[in-house]
Amino acid sequence: MKDADVVLSGAHVLLLDDKDTILERGAVAVVGDSIAAVGTPEEIDREYTARKRIDGVNCLLLPGLVNSHTHAAMTCFRGIADDLDLMDWLSNYIFPAEARNVDPELAYWGSLLACAEMILSGTTTFCDMYIFENETARAAHEAGMRCLLGEVLFDFPSPNVKTPGEGLRYTEMLIQKWADDPLVNVVVEPHALYTCSPTLLKDAKALADAYGVPVATHYLENMTEPGIVQEKLGRRASAFLQEIGYLDERFFVFHGVYMDDEDIRLFADHGCKVVHNPESNMKLASGVAPVSRMLEAGIKVGLGTDGCASNNNLDMFQEMDTAAKLEKSARLDPTVMSARTVLRMATCNGAKVLGLDHLVGSIRPGMKADLALVKLDKPHLTPMYSEYSHLVYAVNGSDVDTVLINGRLVMENRKLLTIDVNEAMERVLRIAERVKRSMAK
Amino acid sequence: MKDADVVLSGAHVLLLDDKDTILERGAVAVVGDSIAAVGTPEEIDREYTARKRIDGVNCLLLPGLVNSHTHAAMTCFRGIADDLDLMDWLSNYIFPAEARNVDPELAYWGSLLACAEMILSGTTTFCDMYIFENETARAAHEAGMRCLLGEVLFDFPSPNVKTPGEGLRYTEMLIQKWADDPLVNVVVEPHALYTCSPTLLKDAKALADAYGVPVATHYLENMTEPGIVQEKLGRRASAFLQEIGYLDERFFVFHGVYMDDEDIRLFADHGCKVVHNPESNMKLASGVAPVSRMLEAGIKVGLGTDGCASNNNLDMFQEMDTAAKLEKSARLDPTVMSARTVLRMATCNGAKVLGLDHLVGSIRPGMKADLALVKLDKPHLTPMYSEYSHLVYAVNGSDVDTVLINGRLVMENRKLLTIDVNEAMERVLRIAERVKRSMAK
Repeated sequence: MKDADVVLSGAHVLLLDDKDTILERGAVAVVGDSIAAVGTPEEIDREYTARKRIDGVNCLLLPGLVNSHTHAAMTCFRGIADDLDLMDWLSNYIFPAEARNVDPELAYWGSLLACAEMILSGTTTFCDMYIFENETARAAHEAGMRCLLGEVLFDFPSPNVKTPGEGLRYTEMLIQKWADDPLVNVVVEPHALYTCSPTLLKDAKALADAYGVPVATHYLENMTEPGIVQEKLGRRASAFLQEIGYLDERFFVFHGVYMDDEDIRLFADHGCKVVHNPESNMKLASGVAPVSRMLEAGIKVGLGTDGCASNNNLDMFQEMDTAAKLEKSARLDPTVMSARTVLRMATCNGAKVLGLDHLVGSIRPGMKADLALVKLDKPHLTPMYSEYSHLVYAVNGSDVDTVLINGRLVMENRKLLTIDVNEAMERVLRIAERVKRSMAK
Repeated sequence: MKDADVVLSGAHVLLLDDKDTILERGAVAVVGDSIAAVGTPEEIDREYTARKRIDGVNCLLLPGLVNSHTHAAMTCFRGIADDLDLMDWLSNYIFPAEARNVDPELAYWGSLLACAEMILSGTTTFCDMYIFENETARAAHEAGMRCLLGEVLFDFPSPNVKTPGEGLRYTEMLIQKWADDPLVNVVVEPHALYTCSPTLLKDAKALADAYGVPVATHYLENMTEPGIVQEKLGRRASAFLQEIGYLDERFFVFHGVYMDDEDIRLFADHGCKVVHNPESNMKLASGVAPVSRMLEAGIKVGLGTDGCASNNNLDMFQEMDTAAKLEKSARLDPTVMSARTVLRMATCNGAKVLGLDHLVGSIRPGMKADLALVKLDKPHLTPMYSEYSHLVYAVNGSDVDTVLINGRLVMENRKLLTIDVNEAMERVLRIAERVKRSMAK
């Protein structure tokens, strides 16, 4: 008999492997930070003695969800302004609120609260872009959450850095500082083509290449953006990115709403990836990303909530539901974006987009133990005919009961084990009072 | 001092009156089945001694939500088939499943489970159309839920009635049987113009007029429906309805996705009303209802989840979120369908659509005490800048803590007080096993 640190037993287990295998009554043994074995409860019990046993009967067990686009600290601005024109929203609410309020304290506590919200709704990995990202890294590290994160880079000063050069140096500091952390990974993140000079974009790519880390950026999010980029750079966005050497397998973009067939072909040919953010795109009336065409072209597409000011939560189960429904509605075809397709976007394919699929996104021996257990004994989850359908169309984040990340139990029976959630809420409430005062001026 | 049966004190209270008043720190006194007084906690405490006190500090108190279109018993078919073409879904899954399985037992337990799900997510009134509606009425009565319901009427036999005449007689029985019930109200419900003969439609209206009850029907839900109706009746749907005397203030329709300017003008001129079902319309790829144009024309629009086979839950908070986002996305305008507009659709305006606004939908003395209390001390609801924004964009059904209907406490601290939820789930699970066996044949 071998020792297992944790055995989860009796759940419907969705492996998210290439065959979309489901074990109707399965068990997973966790040793250290990794999945050691997957099988029937009897098989696992024959092989392992469990230090900690988690009962999965009448539950779904799936890989922890991958939220591939967040601005975590923006929990502090959740719902600060809604139902406004994009430029009004940005110029008169979000940018002033950020300029007056974002500091390391807001970045840390806002990110820690985001980690609490994400764990509570089954997310185990997030990809973040914001200001003072070292604070977000600290929060994720303390919460025990896996992440890929980078400091936002643009031509103008931020509350953290005065120049693009400072932003790049801060990013390099992040890369070096967190190099050996088991959970925190760093990505170089120029904000967007319309906010970054060609020089900054090239320097960002050079930095990423020097350390072998990915590059990610907001891309063609709004209807006006292709025209603005064409005007600024004298060519199409994707043609420009190809010229400056961006199009490779370590490049991915957020949104991609206005990617046309030529963009899609270029991305597919070069192995570039896209993160879809349906709820944010809908709330800001940005348009509908051509996700079906991207998938048909073979582009790997992940799923993200975007920040709390444009969603206004970080619930990936609701995001999956919306992703499936929006594409069906926009294409007038109920067969596109099946529940299976969407769940893969939020797990194994999200992990591929972030370059973390050797670690997470599916359940098999050798993978890191990032797992979410969903309880089914509730009216709105009764009965169940299909595990995929249930997870995408019926479950919401509050149905997640227990979460492991990197083999560590971070939530059990909805109790967070790594975060003092009352302190995090208290600190963010105090920060929000400061934000309100700053906006009343 | 007067006696109050219940005092809820300390919450942010959203009155949903004409001015969208919010009491930042309010209290509500309930006497018998009604709201007796609304004011500050101090005002209420000066006037009332409470038999039962409910602490609303750090909570939102709002009128219970009105789900204006359900097929409650279809909880038994939740997720039975998804991601299929509409006719494939209907002909090969839903219709056979119904023909083989719907009986009084399924109707009763499916409806009772739906009541449990709805109360757990803050809905206090629902408008139902299905088969064996007397069973749904029994379930609602026992659950203590308010409802408006009717037997589905069409030209072909149902598991309950063999002929349209039988359907009308069954509906009349419902009207008479439940006439004095404080919670159960009856509506005459021809299924749709394409499934009912002109004779059945006229007889249905005559029955409704004889008893002064409303009439409701599915209407222009799918892209093909206007053409089918034109072909069948030799004129436009709304012109036909006008000819046979349907267009009055006691007529409302579900969906209305393909209503054009002429339909909207006719509905507005005659005081007819519409129920919007965004999640079902998206999942079945039906199209996007022209809700902004309906609202501009002055039509009262309610909100509904539709049945569990096309959603796949009854969570009105998620439905509100989707309603706001879908309209912004479809019109490429983030200012349409504000959080306020949507919350009114799900409360006071929903009540107007159903003809129950003299009883419910807003909080003021004299109204029936149908109330939902939402707890805010959670990461995904921290911080709060706007009550409306929070309820529409951040809250989900699981955040509802306590619910009163008609003055009766039906849920407290998420514990259902009127329904044996384990028995309801157990019975529906057994019915679902029967459904699965019937579909395997």
